[in-house]
Amino acid sequence: MSAPKIAIIGSGLIGCAWAVSFARGGCDVAMYDQSALAANAAPARIHEMARDMAAVDLLMGQTPDQIAARIRVAKGLEDALTGVDHVQENAPEKLEIKKEIWADLDRLAPERAVLASSTSALLPSAFSESLKGRHRCLVAHPINPPSLIPAVEVVPAPWTDPEIVERTAHLMERIGQTPIRMKREIDGFLMNRLQGALLQEAFRLVDQGIASPEDVDIGIRDGLAPRWALMGPFETIDLNAPGGVRDYVARYQGMYVNMAPSQRDIADWSGPALEQIETERRAALPLDEIPRAQARRDSRLMALMQFLRGKVRA
Amino acid sequence: MSAPKIAIIGSGLIGCAWAVSFARGGCDVAMYDQSALAANAAPARIHEMARDMAAVDLLMGQTPDQIAARIRVAKGLEDALTGVDHVQENAPEKLEIKKEIWADLDRLAPERAVLASSTSALLPSAFSESLKGRHRCLVAHPINPPSLIPAVEVVPAPWTDPEIVERTAHLMERIGQTPIRMKREIDGFLMNRLQGALLQEAFRLVDQGIASPEDVDIGIRDGLAPRWALMGPFETIDLNAPGGVRDYVARYQGMYVNMAPSQRDIADWSGPALEQIETERRAALPLDEIPRAQARRDSRLMALMQFLRGKVRA
Repeated sequence: MSAPKIAIIGSGLIGCAWAVSFARGGCDVAMYDQSALAANAAPARIHEMARDMAAVDLLMGQTPDQIAARIRVAKGLEDALTGVDHVQENAPEKLEIKKEIWADLDRLAPERAVLASSTSALLPSAFSESLKGRHRCLVAHPINPPSLIPAVEVVPAPWTDPEIVERTAHLMERIGQTPIRMKREIDGFLMNRLQGALLQEAFRLVDQGIASPEDVDIGIRDGLAPRWALMGPFETIDLNAPGGVRDYVARYQGMYVNMAPSQRDIADWSGPALEQIETERRAALPLDEIPRAQARRDSRLMALMQFLRGKVRA
Repeated sequence: MSAPKIAIIGSGLIGCAWAVSFARGGCDVAMYDQSALAANAAPARIHEMARDMAAVDLLMGQTPDQIAARIRVAKGLEDALTGVDHVQENAPEKLEIKKEIWADLDRLAPERAVLASSTSALLPSAFSESLKGRHRCLVAHPINPPSLIPAVEVVPAPWTDPEIVERTAHLMERIGQTPIRMKREIDGFLMNRLQGALLQEAFRLVDQGIASPEDVDIGIRDGLAPRWALMGPFETIDLNAPGGVRDYVARYQGMYVNMAPSQRDIADWSGPALEQIETERRAALPLDEIPRAQARRDSRLMALMQFLRGKVRA
């Protein structure tokens, strides 16, 4: 199989991270951005990302120069789309902008190319319905940055050809991502639905004065998340009873059913709970130190992903 | 401050892990079990645990022999309780059994001793209400094993003296645990409520045919959990918007509110969803291989905790 050709539309942070990820998997990548300024800034950003990834051995044994050599800035949209197998769109999360771009993508990309959006906020049906090639359109939503975090939700619209879902999932596996094959579109897809359910309970616990925001963070960080980072929640409960998941449900379903009625209220995210969370967070981290904390998070996350991809999974 | 004296009641897996944790923190530990067989098996088990912990540098620089030297098997309940500062009870999760044991603990332990239960299933009010010393009773619930996972929920009954909560939280910090100071008791405490909210959504996604169990595990393991293992959910969202948590809520509350109405149904945990989860899990891991998978999980978790406690948090 020759190297897949990829077009990346939008060369911000997500677009650049996708470029690293596709190039790491041996793909030839063309980048396009409506802003020539953004497009021209991409190569330096990509090289920096690739260097950081190489330092923690996340380039599948390749050098940053090898990665950079597979990525070019296209002369225009048509140039970017010439002969491509897969288009990864990372435009702003506004339906009208997406619709305009997707009309162009469907018109200009080769008929056999898959068209994928990185959107987290829009359903694939919303921007693909009226397109001639809507059967080849879907969402491939990463947790940012995809170069670092493996999971990618592959979300079909009702009219997406299942073969297109499979091709996309295989491409994701080839470049080192872990595809989630969703059976149909739904608000929040899978990961934000799980995060949303957890956050609703987190806000409720604070709002009802049962625990502080820091207590919630301790319970996840120093309690539940280490196992989840190794296994996910179903494998976790499967190993938490001698007879596996069925045994776990028999033992503990009662406890979860008991608490469920008090977990149905939709929490108020912007009232007193938010005041308390913000007060606590700003005491721990002043607003102007957020960029530095983000950089620290990114380097800790890179070290953790190196650890999880290597030693622990081996 | 001289070494705190601890009595551990019940010397199964949790009791032994507590013994390692308290001894690691410099406490003198006496173990008691109604079954002399179980009590006499404890020292070998504790030594094995301590050896495993030492191998991944989780004994705060001490040797397994130093840990073992601080732990003794008591001659009986009275002997175990003589002069203790803190009692950690790990009896079976049956209210009648607990009530009987707690009556003895309250009668025999020194007046100044804190009485703590490791229960995950019972509220502290349920077994302490009628005790003379109920003001000194609470739950200190670990995620097993406490020797490895830092989070411990400190849960007061309505009549628990707040100073007893603080003393327990300080003791937990001293021995390397991370206490969660709950303001009041509630079914599931904090961690199982958060886990329950996540599992409800996980079961719903499978039950509604939106994703497979493995897809759910990918979304957490390869998507959300790595950040949570570094930071917890509130710190995560605080760093996911330029203006911190208030900015994040302004940007994304709409998405979570949109999906919330479809997250209110209480999932059926034992119907077709369980069939599907069990079929998938047993294809991945036959029932008779669960013990081996648990051992592998424990060693991976130990390596991960070494990593998280050391390098990444530094």
